Amino acid sequence: MTGARRGRRGKDAVAQRREVDYRRLRNPFIPQTVFSEDSVEAIHQTALRVLEELGMKVLLPDARRRFRLSGALVDEDTMIVRIGRDIVEAALRSAPRAFAVRGGLKERDVPIELGALTFQVGAGSPNTTDIVRGRRPSTLRDFADLVRITQHYDALQMLSLGVEAQDVPTHLRHYAVLRAQLTLSDKVPYAFARSAMQARDCHEMIRIVRGASEDEFRATPYCMTVINTNSPRQLDIPMAQGIIDFAEAGQPSIVTPFCLMGAMAPVTVAGALTLSHAEALAGIALSQIARPGAPVCYGAFASNVDMRSGAPAFGTPEEVKANIGAGQLARRLGLPWRCAAGCAANVNDAQAAHETEMSAWGSVLAGATIVKHAAGWLEGGLTVSFEKLITDIEMVQTFAELCLETPADDGAIAFAALAEVPPGGHFFAAAHTMERYQTAFYEPIVADWSNFGKWTERGARDATQRAHDIWTRIVNEFSPPPIDAARIEELDAFIAKRTEAGGAPPVS
Amino acid sequence: MTGARRGRRGKDAVAQRREVDYRRLRNPFIPQTVFSEDSVEAIHQTALRVLEELGMKVLLPDARRRFRLSGALVDEDTMIVRIGRDIVEAALRSAPRAFAVRGGLKERDVPIELGALTFQVGAGSPNTTDIVRGRRPSTLRDFADLVRITQHYDALQMLSLGVEAQDVPTHLRHYAVLRAQLTLSDKVPYAFARSAMQARDCHEMIRIVRGASEDEFRATPYCMTVINTNSPRQLDIPMAQGIIDFAEAGQPSIVTPFCLMGAMAPVTVAGALTLSHAEALAGIALSQIARPGAPVCYGAFASNVDMRSGAPAFGTPEEVKANIGAGQLARRLGLPWRCAAGCAANVNDAQAAHETEMSAWGSVLAGATIVKHAAGWLEGGLTVSFEKLITDIEMVQTFAELCLETPADDGAIAFAALAEVPPGGHFFAAAHTMERYQTAFYEPIVADWSNFGKWTERGARDATQRAHDIWTRIVNEFSPPPIDAARIEELDAFIAKRTEAGGAPPVS
Repeated sequence: MTGARRGRRGKDAVAQRREVDYRRLRNPFIPQTVFSEDSVEAIHQTALRVLEELGMKVLLPDARRRFRLSGALVDEDTMIVRIGRDIVEAALRSAPRAFAVRGGLKERDVPIELGALTFQVGAGSPNTTDIVRGRRPSTLRDFADLVRITQHYDALQMLSLGVEAQDVPTHLRHYAVLRAQLTLSDKVPYAFARSAMQARDCHEMIRIVRGASEDEFRATPYCMTVINTNSPRQLDIPMAQGIIDFAEAGQPSIVTPFCLMGAMAPVTVAGALTLSHAEALAGIALSQIARPGAPVCYGAFASNVDMRSGAPAFGTPEEVKANIGAGQLARRLGLPWRCAAGCAANVNDAQAAHETEMSAWGSVLAGATIVKHAAGWLEGGLTVSFEKLITDIEMVQTFAELCLETPADDGAIAFAALAEVPPGGHFFAAAHTMERYQTAFYEPIVADWSNFGKWTERGARDATQRAHDIWTRIVNEFSPPPIDAARIEELDAFIAKRTEAGGAPPVS
Repeated sequence: MTGARRGRRGKDAVAQRREVDYRRLRNPFIPQTVFSEDSVEAIHQTALRVLEELGMKVLLPDARRRFRLSGALVDEDTMIVRIGRDIVEAALRSAPRAFAVRGGLKERDVPIELGALTFQVGAGSPNTTDIVRGRRPSTLRDFADLVRITQHYDALQMLSLGVEAQDVPTHLRHYAVLRAQLTLSDKVPYAFARSAMQARDCHEMIRIVRGASEDEFRATPYCMTVINTNSPRQLDIPMAQGIIDFAEAGQPSIVTPFCLMGAMAPVTVAGALTLSHAEALAGIALSQIARPGAPVCYGAFASNVDMRSGAPAFGTPEEVKANIGAGQLARRLGLPWRCAAGCAANVNDAQAAHETEMSAWGSVLAGATIVKHAAGWLEGGLTVSFEKLITDIEMVQTFAELCLETPADDGAIAFAALAEVPPGGHFFAAAHTMERYQTAFYEPIVADWSNFGKWTERGARDATQRAHDIWTRIVNEFSPPPIDAARIEELDAFIAKRTEAGGAPPVS
């Protein structure tokens, strides 16, 4: 930077701030393809055939009953439900193409539809790690810190299941975990679907804090949950119950088979997606049987295993291809859908970044509405790293920046500036630069662009070490958004009453 | 993995090997856009206006003379050459849309055209680093090791300038560096364009080793070079000379302005690309004036600076957008072109991986024919890291895998396998899996997918540490491809004669 420029800058009493809105992103990319249109149709038709001829094993009697009443062929001995394509097609007609999930503020409402793009942090991890305290079983404190960090960054539009608060007993965990979300954040919360009572509790807690009547709540999405099938072709009791409970309550569930090629799914991308597609369609059908028009998301999470050890792998070319193929299937249906990033590294290193970036790009190029596990995941989700959270949020923010327009008006094309600066000169002090430099570029959160000498002088700290400072500062300086104290009081009274009554255990 | 599977596998006397061909990749992605068609046209037209009205400062008298003879307006006092659009349009008509560069073997020939995809390692670095020897000025040994590693991986289809062999004096460096390429590798070499004598020497050395007659050499691309303009709007003596010499010799040059937004180029993406496009067109025009039909590549390398320090930044959203926009301009011309990945981190950490992956994805989605600096770059190119080279080659190979078809025939869709495995079962031992598992998935080079316990037991080594083992093994076990001993003898005699005669200094 020139002295002139520095001088001019020093005189700025108030520096201009770059203001960007990452809260409602539209995916700027043309969706990519790995299959021909004919192959997409063949996979879709084969998935319908899987549901008709092979069926799903559905462990919940009430779900089997509902499927039977809709015309499915149910064998009560084997619990196999064979679902005709008429049932699936009716569900695809009634499932909404678009809906919005309401946050604590209007600006936090999240549109869920093809073309929208949202990111969530890694979810479901039994362990948490950071470079000072090390790897340990996740606690409620870790969960709450994850909520604080999520609240801090607009590019994470929704909360996620985050880490498992293992220090809270399972019959009370949903109270603690949802309370943390509702009191530390005004973003769309994640609600548990581990038993009917837990779902009811969660819905009631959200209703209280959002100040919604029962009718309003039933008519408006206020939270999301994830339903995982037990691939291959099985829907267990809590998950089937969750689909029904969330659909009846008008709350969206995301039906996500987790299909590891070569393990719980065929070893080929097309085969794994055929299975995944069939299972997702079965879940979507159940949601629409429970309540036609209920908000629901298609989901896909397919990667491969290491065929030498059976260990799950992420960020592989097969996962990128599966993500892109899943996007083709989601567009075939016209439904909003979730995809995921992932990483199987054990530490926040170059492997970890590579795997998360590859699978995140796969999700974004696939046109996913929700990119789950986009930040923080290590070990295929067994651990969330607070430092990786921050280094991955740099990636998430970069994607968010790519959603912003790239101006190409006369001012941006800048002929006048090109005329102003002589050959071999520089643009540091050009009028065109002076007008724009404070807001021209994305400002990174963790990248250090200083030269090797300066970086060495400052302690030669890598991105992980710098990320540690960043997340701890966010947590230490955090103040929650304003939330009506009376509602929190009511929430706490509800939790106390339910705790008194014995809480609500998960079912299995 | 099940016991059954392990048992079956143990009995395989000879394991099947996965065979893939990374040598001639076709880009599988639909090119992305950041500008409307109208904006692309506006940038192109403004670039033509820049050349016509503002002109380029051309330091080489012979280049000015050639431009003048072609109808450009030349001011000998200011050395400004104003280039009419008729000259540029004639050049765009004569520049070839496609050519192939010949390697030492037919399988090493590299097609250069829109739709082809190639990767090169980081180039031009004065320093080299590895985690044992640390960061030091680059040497011929480092250069040679880089050639060995490049030769090892098919996904790096060409050699690159690599690191600067600073232990060899500049008047002899091109002999040593090109000799290393020609004796350690059968891939397309990088040739120097730092003076007319150096270019002539390089061409002669390649001609000798490839066994080409002078006519054959002049009719066939055998090497590539990079021409960097001095942005803004200046073409220096060696670069202008290089364009002329390579065009006359029938050898391709890649005309690459290096436009840092806010420093040597306007602070906007559209402005930087307008400048870059104008300069590239000027270089291409000179090549076609020197020899109509000479092979030439369009080039773009635009990123932004940190506006607080003026330091170059890479992997930023602005760079990704510039890459994609440059692709739109290259397609407007119809010419093959080079783009680049990049990274400004000081160490092979999560920042380094993030920046390289972002800019590499930008290049790939932009439809670049050549992705330079795709592996190994740190510090914005001031250093090549051997460990980052390996972790980035994992990324390059992942891109190469994404170029391969994703089968979706009946066998891949796998209805029979879905029927074979019961609900809740697994596919490890399915016939469909057994037939395919040995070759189904990409096998990573540096990723470690073992669980945290095993990884810890084995020493908790991160990707950088593992990469060190990998590159040192490649270098230690390296044996060069077979090259005719008589030709090497002739090459060495040529070098001896030229050295005796005083070598060939670069000009400036």
